[in-house]
Parts: sequence; structure tokens; C-alpha cells
Amino acid sequence: MTKQGKVYLIGACPGDPGLLGLKAKECLETADAVVYDRLADPRILAFARKDAEMVYVGKASANHTMRQPDINKLLVKLAQEGKTVARLKGGDPFVFGRGGEEAIELLEAGQPFEFVPGVTSAIAVAEYAGIPVTHRHVATSFAVITGHEDPTKGASTINWQGLATAVDTLVFLMGVENIEKISSQLIANGRSADCPAAVIRWGTHPDQRTLVTTLGKAAADVKANNLKPPAIFLVGEVVKLREQLQWFDNKPLFGQTIIVTRARAQASDLTKKLEALGAKVIEVPAIKIVPAADYGPLDKGIAELSSYKWLVFTSANGVEYFFERLLLAGKDARALAGVQLAAIGSATADALKAQGLTADLVPSADKAEELA
Amino acid sequence: MTKQGKVYLIGACPGDPGLLGLKAKECLETADAVVYDRLADPRILAFARKDAEMVYVGKASANHTMRQPDINKLLVKLAQEGKTVARLKGGDPFVFGRGGEEAIELLEAGQPFEFVPGVTSAIAVAEYAGIPVTHRHVATSFAVITGHEDPTKGASTINWQGLATAVDTLVFLMGVENIEKISSQLIANGRSADCPAAVIRWGTHPDQRTLVTTLGKAAADVKANNLKPPAIFLVGEVVKLREQLQWFDNKPLFGQTIIVTRARAQASDLTKKLEALGAKVIEVPAIKIVPAADYGPLDKGIAELSSYKWLVFTSANGVEYFFERLLLAGKDARALAGVQLAAIGSATADALKAQGLTADLVPSADKAEELA
Repeated sequence: MTKQGKVYLIGACPGDPGLLGLKAKECLETADAVVYDRLADPRILAFARKDAEMVYVGKASANHTMRQPDINKLLVKLAQEGKTVARLKGGDPFVFGRGGEEAIELLEAGQPFEFVPGVTSAIAVAEYAGIPVTHRHVATSFAVITGHEDPTKGASTINWQGLATAVDTLVFLMGVENIEKISSQLIANGRSADCPAAVIRWGTHPDQRTLVTTLGKAAADVKANNLKPPAIFLVGEVVKLREQLQWFDNKPLFGQTIIVTRARAQASDLTKKLEALGAKVIEVPAIKIVPAADYGPLDKGIAELSSYKWLVFTSANGVEYFFERLLLAGKDARALAGVQLAAIGSATADALKAQGLTADLVPSADKAEELA
Repeated sequence: MTKQGKVYLIGACPGDPGLLGLKAKECLETADAVVYDRLADPRILAFARKDAEMVYVGKASANHTMRQPDINKLLVKLAQEGKTVARLKGGDPFVFGRGGEEAIELLEAGQPFEFVPGVTSAIAVAEYAGIPVTHRHVATSFAVITGHEDPTKGASTINWQGLATAVDTLVFLMGVENIEKISSQLIANGRSADCPAAVIRWGTHPDQRTLVTTLGKAAADVKANNLKPPAIFLVGEVVKLREQLQWFDNKPLFGQTIIVTRARAQASDLTKKLEALGAKVIEVPAIKIVPAADYGPLDKGIAELSSYKWLVFTSANGVEYFFERLLLAGKDARALAGVQLAAIGSATADALKAQGLTADLVPSADKAEELA
């Protein structure tokens, strides 16, 4: 029997979970089913109810046209089962998020929907790179354009002639694969090849990478630096402001990956502080009884130990647990060569000592800053 | 002595507090000082610490050029006092929010800053009106332009000739005062006078008002409907989609103002449910000992009683308190003529009866829907 459900079409922000909105979080926490795409951050998905139906709908950039009708059908089906559905979209549902299409399909099936706007990557990713899309006396307008469209195809709906010079700042979303064609079109239609440009990959993530270039050199620089999607391509004088306004990839621990063992299910204070200092933190559970699914991150961390600068233990349990898995992986303490060890609190340091290791740093629990 | 503080330049979203981001909320909750503008929503300001220094910096649209240098200086001063500062901006700090200027001033004073992107009104306000800025086969690009600039002034930095036709969807922020000049420029430069257009006032608020028109008729319609700022002006074929996608101003209680007396400091569940149904809810405290500052909303409500459709009492205390203030205002139960009364729970209904009034509706505490 067909019931009535409700679908929230939610902007789930570009990456940093701190950008998620309060209402979006609430929808996630209460939804019976969560439908999410390829770029959804696990820290955002973690807000969902433990018993929620989690449906991954893929949508890699290549085959994304094919699958949309199936996603539409899926949303209708879930709603007809009487479910409250959180449909998560990177950025905003209406900025190339196809939220309108999904809503129309729900409307036609008589199912109610609501939109929950999100921070768009067009603005936020630039912001995390220290590039303001508008700035007094530099840019009084910006445009956001899909970078998916091949501008050499006859069917291009983009007015390249006008676009090239009509707007101060141009932001192409998913604009890396077509960067050569996009920049040629802009130059051919009157934008200066010397115009500053930037390519920002994994914006707002701890893996964010920003390439500053010019419109004329952008395509070659992307190739030389092997920059792949997901990335945005930004063109405009505002790029120059990054020199002054860079802040995110300036943070003391930016670019460093730190493993933190934790005692509770919640993100620890320590993790929060390390992330605020720019670190990429991998949290691994440090309790005795752990579901098998949770072994993954730690075992992956153990496999790549040499790529880490710091390993942070927050409890004696964490130390024990870590060495258990290390031995199971056929390794021992020698695998820690070159990795700095931190133990939060003296009990944790003692547990390390029992394994024959001396902590390089023993900060108290509330002083993550000492790691910086 | 000059200390080092930290300033968070925060996008505080356009109005609906549910759009505020998690990090923005956290910054607000911990800041020593909060600096906010004219359009800041009181429900967002309420997240600030009770002892935080709250600084209102006005910024009405007319004199906003004058004051920016003073705001910059204020932020530097607060930071130099060693304070953590939450600088709230409607929308996003970089979308005509002058966040870049404030950051540069802080940089020059050696004070650290961070940006916290927010949902921009250019996208979210349209979204609450059921208008997607992009939509497959309708719009593959959108531009956001300041509406403050007078296009007839020689110094206009906007390329009207290109802009008119280069981009599918045009969103002018604060575009109502100059709407006549903006639309003439667009038409003169090739945009059809028949192009659909919309003016959205107080977007995302319960007071949201949407005028659907055409580019050619927009200025006259705004005048005829006496639409004032704050509003955005949106031009593009996507406006037609509102017919199908309208959702926010469709809600069962949209356009209705409801007074809810409450027993605790937190927003009550009832208020949340009523707001989810589209109502504008005025919460008034219903406890015996109330700081004088809190009388305001209730007394204001009492002064305007006849404009309300519903008055909702959630407790017997609330009833007593309400009549205390009503008598003090020189009124009595006759002032409630034409207002429907709801009492949550039978004890509350009894308290009303003691005042000689019969509740029109006595829903149980968890059934706000019955009011709809």
C-alpha cells in the first residue's frame, strides 16, 4: 500500500563537516533512510540514526546522467513506504545538484518534499583557499558555471562570448577535466590569458590542494601537477588576494595525518583540537569489544605507518589495542621507526613504556596545541 | 598591552536559524565578543554566551560605506584585547560581505582570523521561494551581482552589455532600490522584457514574500506592491519552476503568527513543530521570576493582540503570567476578541477557565499538528 513519506533534499556542504547546517543535521538524525552520493563525508553520514537505511547512489562524474532517473525512482519508492528520507547532496541541492528534478518527480508522485540549502562549494572552496568571490574594487559580480559541459560540442548551452568578459569572477564546478577547452574558449572570447586563475582540489578537506596559475597556463599546470577531480576552476583578479587571505592551508598541522586512538564513540576533544590546527585525524576505536567493521581504519593506518609523522595514544587501552593489531599484521615496534609518539597522560605513557617505547611527548589531555 | 586574539568571520545565513552551520554555532557559543549587523536574527544571537560582549554595528544599507573602516578598527581592537571574536555576517562573508577587507585589516595588525562560510541568500532565498538557480535544460549558469550599484552612474563596474545575455540566471542582492535601472539596463542590452523575474523579500523568514513578474514589469510591480528591502531580484527562466517547486510559503501555517508561552529557557518542542508547519512563533517566558528585559516580547504581543490568529498557552503558569501583564497594560480578556485560544493539556485549559475563557482547542503536548 502506498503511504505518504517526506523527502528532505539537503545541501550537505562540500567537505568540512563543520559547514553542515543545523537543520540538515537534524534531518539526518531523524531520517528513516539516507540517500547519499560519492563525495559524502563519513563524518557527516555518522549523524544518521544507527538503524537508518543507508543507500549509496554512486554518481561518479562519468556516468551521472544515466543514473539520475533511478535515483528519482528510489526517492519516490522510499517515500511511498512512508519513510522520512534525507537526500544528501554535496554543496547545495540547486547548484548543479539536480534537486529540482528530484522534487518534481516526488511532486508527481504526490510525495511532500522540502529543500535544505547548503553551503555551495563554488563559494566555500574558494573561501578555504583564501580567495573571495567578491571583493571591493576587485570584483562586484561572480558567476558559477558547470564545468561538465564540453564547450567544443555543438550543443553547448554556455554563451562563451558573453561569459568571458561579462562577470568579474568565474567559478567552474567540476571544471578540471575540461580545463583546456574552458580556458581556450574564455581567451578566444576576450578574457586575458594573464588573468589570474586557481584550481582547488578537495576544497575544505584536510587534503585541500590549491594551484595558483593564470588562465593561459592553467591547463598545462594542471597536467604538470597531475591534478584530478574533484576540483573547481576559478578565474579572476580575486585570486591575487590569496597571498594575503590564505588561512586554512597555513595552519600549523595542515598536511599532517595523525592517528588518534579513542576510548569513546564520540569524536574526542583532542581530535577536534587537532583538526582545528589543520591536521587530518584518523580516529580508531580503543575499546576491547569492537565490531569487525571498525578494524579497517586502524589496519589501514598500520599498513601505511611510515607515511605518518605522529601517532597519538589517548589511553592505555589504546596502546594495548594498537599493538594487538600491529602483531596481527605481522609487524612489531620496529615498524614505528621515524614516527613520533605522543601519549596523552602519564598512564598512557606507562603503557607505551611496557611495550619498550618512550613517548616523545606526553601532553595533558586538554593541550593538543603542544603537538603543533 | 596588545594581546593576540582571534576573529572568526562567520557566514550567519540569511534568516532561518536552521541554516546556520555547526562550526558557526560553535564559534558563537565560545566567543568572548560577538559583532553583528542589522539583519542578524535574534534566534542566532541567542547562541552566544550569556556573558559575551554583544556589539551591534548597524550597517543600514544607506550609510554602509561610511562605517566599514570603523568596523575594521573595532575588530582589531577586540582582538588586541586577547578576545575570541565572532563576526557575524548575513549570508557568506565573501558574497558582498566585505569579509576580505576585515581580514586584511586584521592581518596588518598581526591578528589571526578564520573564515566560516555560510549559506548565501543568493541561492537559499531563491530556494525557499521554490526557484532553483540552476536546472537541467533551463539554466546551466548563474551570476550573483550587487544591486547596490547605481547603473546610471559613470563609475559602474558592471558590464551590463555582457551580463544581460551571458548567464542564464541573474541574482541581484539588495536589488530592489535600483530595480528600475537594473531592469532597463538588462533590456537595453538584449535580455527579453518577457523574461520571468521574481522579487523575494525577507527570504527564508516566516515573513517571506515572493512577487513573480517579468523583467519588463518588475519595477512597476514592486512599486504597486510596495515591496521594500531587504529583497533579492532574480531574473531567468528558472522562475517558472516556482509553480511546481513552491514549498515553503505553501506550508499549512505559513503567514500566521502564534504566541507561545513557555516554561523553560529552551525553545520548546511545540515552537519547533509550529515553525516546521510554517508559522511565525513568538515565544514569551512564563516563569514567575523574569528579568525585566524579557517582558518586551510579551508586552509587544499584548499591544498587538488583534493581529494574531492564535494564542497558545503551554502551562497554567503561562496563563497567569499572561493575564498579569495584560492587566498591567490596562486591558482585560475583552482584548482577546477574535483571537483563537489553544491550551496545551487540561491543566492549562483549567487555568484559562479560571479566567473565564474557554479554550478553542486543547491539543496534547506532542500534537502541534492539530493546530494546523
